[in-house]
Amino acid sequence: MQKKIGGYLCAMQTPTIPKGTRDFLPGHMSRRKHILKTIENVYLKFGFMPIETPAMENISTLTGKYGEEGDKLLFRILNSGDFLSKSKENDRNDAWTLLPKIAEKGLRYDLTVPLARFVVQHRNDLQFPFRRYQMQPVWRADRPQKGRYREFWQCDADIIGSKSLTGEADLVAIYNEVFLNLKLSDYELRINHRRLLEAVAETIGYPDNFKELTIALDKYDKIGADGVARELISSGFNEEAIEKLRPFLAKQVLNEATISRWESMVISSDSSSTAFKDLRDLITYLEAMDHKATLYLDGTLARGLDYYTGCIFEATIPNSGIGSVSGGGRYDDLTGVFGVKDMPGVGISFGIDRIYDIMEERNLFDEINENPSKILLCHFEESSMLYCMKVASQLRAEGIGCEVYPDRKKIARQFDYANKRNFEYVGVVGENEVKEEKMTLKNMKSGIQDTVTIAEIIKRLA
Amino acid sequence: MQKKIGGYLCAMQTPTIPKGTRDFLPGHMSRRKHILKTIENVYLKFGFMPIETPAMENISTLTGKYGEEGDKLLFRILNSGDFLSKSKENDRNDAWTLLPKIAEKGLRYDLTVPLARFVVQHRNDLQFPFRRYQMQPVWRADRPQKGRYREFWQCDADIIGSKSLTGEADLVAIYNEVFLNLKLSDYELRINHRRLLEAVAETIGYPDNFKELTIALDKYDKIGADGVARELISSGFNEEAIEKLRPFLAKQVLNEATISRWESMVISSDSSSTAFKDLRDLITYLEAMDHKATLYLDGTLARGLDYYTGCIFEATIPNSGIGSVSGGGRYDDLTGVFGVKDMPGVGISFGIDRIYDIMEERNLFDEINENPSKILLCHFEESSMLYCMKVASQLRAEGIGCEVYPDRKKIARQFDYANKRNFEYVGVVGENEVKEEKMTLKNMKSGIQDTVTIAEIIKRLA
Repeated sequence: MQKKIGGYLCAMQTPTIPKGTRDFLPGHMSRRKHILKTIENVYLKFGFMPIETPAMENISTLTGKYGEEGDKLLFRILNSGDFLSKSKENDRNDAWTLLPKIAEKGLRYDLTVPLARFVVQHRNDLQFPFRRYQMQPVWRADRPQKGRYREFWQCDADIIGSKSLTGEADLVAIYNEVFLNLKLSDYELRINHRRLLEAVAETIGYPDNFKELTIALDKYDKIGADGVARELISSGFNEEAIEKLRPFLAKQVLNEATISRWESMVISSDSSSTAFKDLRDLITYLEAMDHKATLYLDGTLARGLDYYTGCIFEATIPNSGIGSVSGGGRYDDLTGVFGVKDMPGVGISFGIDRIYDIMEERNLFDEINENPSKILLCHFEESSMLYCMKVASQLRAEGIGCEVYPDRKKIARQFDYANKRNFEYVGVVGENEVKEEKMTLKNMKSGIQDTVTIAEIIKRLA
Repeated sequence: MQKKIGGYLCAMQTPTIPKGTRDFLPGHMSRRKHILKTIENVYLKFGFMPIETPAMENISTLTGKYGEEGDKLLFRILNSGDFLSKSKENDRNDAWTLLPKIAEKGLRYDLTVPLARFVVQHRNDLQFPFRRYQMQPVWRADRPQKGRYREFWQCDADIIGSKSLTGEADLVAIYNEVFLNLKLSDYELRINHRRLLEAVAETIGYPDNFKELTIALDKYDKIGADGVARELISSGFNEEAIEKLRPFLAKQVLNEATISRWESMVISSDSSSTAFKDLRDLITYLEAMDHKATLYLDGTLARGLDYYTGCIFEATIPNSGIGSVSGGGRYDDLTGVFGVKDMPGVGISFGIDRIYDIMEERNLFDEINENPSKILLCHFEESSMLYCMKVASQLRAEGIGCEVYPDRKKIARQFDYANKRNFEYVGVVGENEVKEEKMTLKNMKSGIQDTVTIAEIIKRLA
C-alpha cells in the first residue's frame, strides 16, 4: 500500500531510532550549540583545554567502576567477525558467562573514568596541574523516561594534579558565570564535604556506618528528614543518633559564622579539622576573587560518595521540577584503579539535556534564530536566477550567509519557503533589477521593501 | 611491582584503548577544531543547518546499505540484559545465525544513511529544499592502518529536495572556499557523471556491463590505463571496446570545449544528453557565481557508484601521498530504501582525519596555540596568591583567559609550568606588587618585563 505523506509517495513503515535516543533538528541544534558554546567559553577563560576520548573503551576499563548496577547499564559492543570463536558450547547457555567472551568493548558511561584512564595513559605528555574540559555524549542502557535518555551529553571540567582549594574556587566561579550567561541566575549551588559527613557519622556515634548514613541522606530531597530518620532506624541507627543528626539536615549560607556553628556541633577529629580547613580555604579564595554569589553548606548533600574524597557540589534550578543540573567534587584517588596512586583531582559536570529543558520551559531561547542565512534570493526567470547567484557570491565574500532559491518556481512558492524558514530578508530579482544591477530588498518582519544597489544590501546586512 | 612514572607511583599495566581508536590531546584538539570550524563556517555561509543523529541506529536501518562487505564492518551493540533470551539453543552454534537475535542496534557507519532515515522520519517537520550539515564520528570495524581508523569523523553537507544543478554549483564553491581557508589552495577537484559513464558503456558496445566497467575504472589511480584494460579483458570486454575506451581515460578542464569534444566521442542517447545538460548547467551556474577555480572532468572517476545518479565529485591534495580527502555526488533515490521515492539529493563529505595529516605534514598549524589562557599569574607567598586571584577575576571579567598557579611552589617551578604550557605572558606578584596594586608582566617570547598597573595589563592583553 502506498500513500502520500509530506508530498512524497510512501510505501512502508516509517523508520525509527532506538528508544532513548534522539535526532536533533536544526532548531534544537542551534539551541544546544548555544548552551555548549556558553559553557565552553567559560571553561576556556578559566584555562581549561579540550580533550576527546573514543566512544568505545576496552570493557575492562569500564567494568567495576560504576557499581554492580552500573555494570548492567553498560552498552557492550559485539566483537567483530566470528564473535563466537572465543567461546565454548557450554559458555553459551548463560548470558553472563558468554558476555566477556563475545564483547570486549563498551560505550563510555561517563567522562570521568575515561579521564582517569586518559591521564594515566598520557601522563608523560601532560603538564600538571592539568586543566581539561570534555564535551561528548555518553551512553547508558537505563530505562528511558522523561528527561532520561540512553544517549546524552556531559560537559566536564576537571583539574588534575593539585590539592589546592583554588581549584574548587575556580569551579564555583565557573558555575556562577555559566548560569548567569545562560540567564539562569536563580541557580542554587550547594556544597558539602566528605570528611564533614564522616565527622557527622562520628558525632552521632556511628563512625563505621558511614555508607548507610550517606545512602539515607542521598534520599533527603525525596523523602525529607522523617524519611531519612525511618531509613536509618531500619538500618540499625538508634533514636539518640537520629536526634543528634537532625541539626545537620540543614542548608545554610557558607560563611565563617556557619562554619563556626557546625564546628561547635561536631566532635573534633582529623575528619572535621580537614573539612573545616578546606571550607575556610574555599571562602578565603572566593573572597579574594570578589565572588558575590551565595553558596550553601548542605548537610544532606551526599551524591553517592563512592569516589569523592573532599568537597562535593550540586547545582539546581529552583522551581524547575528537575533535580540537579550539575554535580562534581574532589576525588584524590581516581586514577588508583589504573595503577597510579595519589593523583588528586577536582571536577564538575553539566548535564546539558536538563539545562535545555529548563531553558525551553522558561522561553530563554527566544532570540536564537536557527537560520544561518540572512537573506533568500528569489527570481522571476532563469536570467534573474543567474544574477542572484552572482549577488550571492558577492554577499558571501563579505561574510553574509545567503541562499538562492534553487528551482524555477512561482515567486509565491519561493516566498512561502522564505516564511517557513524564517528568513530575515528576501531579495527579489526580475528583469528590471538585472538591468539596473539592483535588487528589491524586503524586510520580512516589517514588510517594508525598496529597490537598492548590491553595495547598499551589503551595508545593511553586514 | 611498583615503579615511578611521570612522578607518580605506578603499580600495574598502563591502560589502553581499543585498536583503531584515538585519544585527542589538547594540541591535537585545537588543530582539529580549527579544521571543523573552518568547514562549519563555510557551510553556514551557504545556508546549511546543523543536525545530529544518534550514534546507534536500529540494525535494520544499517544492514544492506553498504554492500556485503559493509555489513561485516558494522559495529553491533549487544542487546541489554539477558541478551540470549530471544535465541534458541541451536541458534547459538553459528555467529551469523545468532547475530540478529542478540544485537538489534549498530553504530552508524556513515552520515548518509542516517540522513536518509532522518529525512524520511522527519519529512513533515522539514522545509524542502533542506540544506543540512552534520559533523559527527562514524565507526567501521575495518583493519586499522596508517590513516585508517575505526572511529573517525565525517563532515557532510547535503541539499535534499531539489534537482537543480545550483546545488552542485554551491558545493563546488564550498570546496573552493574550504580549501582556500585551510591554505590547501593546490587542491584538485574532479567531477564525472553517472549518465556519462553509462554513455561510455553504450559507446564501447557494453551497455549492460556498466558495473564491471565502473569497478575497473575505480582502480585507475592504482593500476593505470593498462591495468584497467587487463581487468576489463578478464571481465570479458573485447579489444575493440578497450581501444574505444582509451580516449575517455582522461582528465580535462571542465569547460564548453571539453564537453563538445566528449559529445563528439560518445553515441547519442538519453544518458549522454542528460549528462551533458547537467554539466553545461553547472558551468553556467559557476560562471554566474564568478567561480574562478579549475574543475576537471575525469572519465576515470567512478567512486563505487551504488547510489549516485548524477554528478560525482572527488577532491585530492596533489603530492600528499593521500587519496581523496572529500567525495560526493548526486543521489536521486537515496530515501527509496526507506519507502519515500523520488526524493532528490546532492552532497559532499570531508574526511577531516586525512586533511589533518596533510596540514600537519605541511606545517599549516603553526599559528595555533593550544593554550586558551593568555597569562599565568605566579606568586611568592600566600598573600600574593590571593592578590593574583583577585586580578584573575578582573581579567576574566574583561574576557581575558588566565590561570593562577594553584599551589604554593617555588617561583622557578611556576615558571617551568608556564614554559611547558606555552603561556604568552606571566604575571609575577610579590609583596611590592601587592602593596602598589601592580603586577610584573613578563612577555615569555621577548623576555621583556616591566611592572605595570592592572588596567595596563588589561589594555595589553585584551
